[in-house]
Amino acid sequence: MEAGCGVGAQTVTLAQNSPEAQIISIDISEASINEARQRVESKGYSNVHFQQENIFDLPFEPESFDHVFVCFVLEHLLNPSEALSILKKYIRTDGTITVIEGDHGSTYFYPDSEAAHRAIECQVELQKKSGGNSLIGRELYPLLIQAGFKKVSVSPRMVYIDSSKPELVEGFTKKTFTAMIEGVGASAVNAGIIDQASFDKGIADLYRTTEPDGVFCYTFFKAVAEK
Amino acid sequence: MEAGCGVGAQTVTLAQNSPEAQIISIDISEASINEARQRVESKGYSNVHFQQENIFDLPFEPESFDHVFVCFVLEHLLNPSEALSILKKYIRTDGTITVIEGDHGSTYFYPDSEAAHRAIECQVELQKKSGGNSLIGRELYPLLIQAGFKKVSVSPRMVYIDSSKPELVEGFTKKTFTAMIEGVGASAVNAGIIDQASFDKGIADLYRTTEPDGVFCYTFFKAVAEK
Repeated sequence: MEAGCGVGAQTVTLAQNSPEAQIISIDISEASINEARQRVESKGYSNVHFQQENIFDLPFEPESFDHVFVCFVLEHLLNPSEALSILKKYIRTDGTITVIEGDHGSTYFYPDSEAAHRAIECQVELQKKSGGNSLIGRELYPLLIQAGFKKVSVSPRMVYIDSSKPELVEGFTKKTFTAMIEGVGASAVNAGIIDQASFDKGIADLYRTTEPDGVFCYTFFKAVAEK
Repeated sequence: MEAGCGVGAQTVTLAQNSPEAQIISIDISEASINEARQRVESKGYSNVHFQQENIFDLPFEPESFDHVFVCFVLEHLLNPSEALSILKKYIRTDGTITVIEGDHGSTYFYPDSEAAHRAIECQVELQKKSGGNSLIGRELYPLLIQAGFKKVSVSPRMVYIDSSKPELVEGFTKKTFTAMIEGVGASAVNAGIIDQASFDKGIADLYRTTEPDGVFCYTFFKAVAEK
């Protein structure tokens, strides 16, 4: 089971890398499920079944899955440990779980900039206000232990980017991370977390890290564990 | 050449891993050189020659080294890029350099703590006052490019520690990192950077990350480059 497949960005990779697996991908949003289904079918994969479901109210039989995959989902939940406990019910004895999350507090760069850190902090605060946690990557070990999983093994996946890696400068620093922070600007200013000029300075400083002498670091965390 | 060998902590590893190499290890401190020599001789290695020298005033012939190794040295220098330029002179054509540095700004942990970050910041500020840079790890790429090196390749070496790794909790989080931060407390309070109670709270919060649900992250950076 892929719990919280969203628009299927990871589903395509799962279907491709595990052609022998029968995958059930769920998401709470019907629109996302439809987009994910279209994406996976357009790639020609037929081993994924999509269902609109809520992680906290699943219709499956207990112990009916060999593996559960959860990627970029816990960060949005008020009660991530409870979600893991519930998912655990549906994993067979000795079955496994994979959890992947980012951690915005793992972001640092050269040239360093207080303004850029403050702009990132806006995203962290907004996520917190909406019940989520942008710093959850570092917490995967205690969350999985708390949910009763065994053999919890967490490995960081650090993204280190300097100008010798132009495709990552474009694809990650600019178009993924900075674009995502830039996207919360209006909400952050409206919420009174920051003023527009300070936010703009932070964004400019994030773009500054994409110049030839710039460096950008971010870390994702991957956890695997056994029921 | 090992430039800035200190008391020989890395020299032992170099001598062991490269038994065929003739190593010249230099340091500006005679006391350190003597300690390093004793350490290496006590392990039975005979392929290291020690000399008390200043990186900025070396007596060697240009291009006389195949490789230069610099570990935890640049962080102490006011002019790290100039030091790299000077060392480059002594490397033969197509010879190589290895540079390893930490970066205190790469430190984050669970539970998160503003007080702990402020205690770490004391070390960063004191290092800065004495002309050094505790955030230099992330800067290795631009520093080596600026010094004229080619084929610069930087790889982060992230230390991720949770309670499934008790030897790292003890050996790194407690006895290396937190002990090092704890060691600057008196200087930081004397310099008026922080008050004693706030510093103590920060240290207590760093120790808090070594409890069973705690997590600690730190990243070293290793760069290799060609003349």
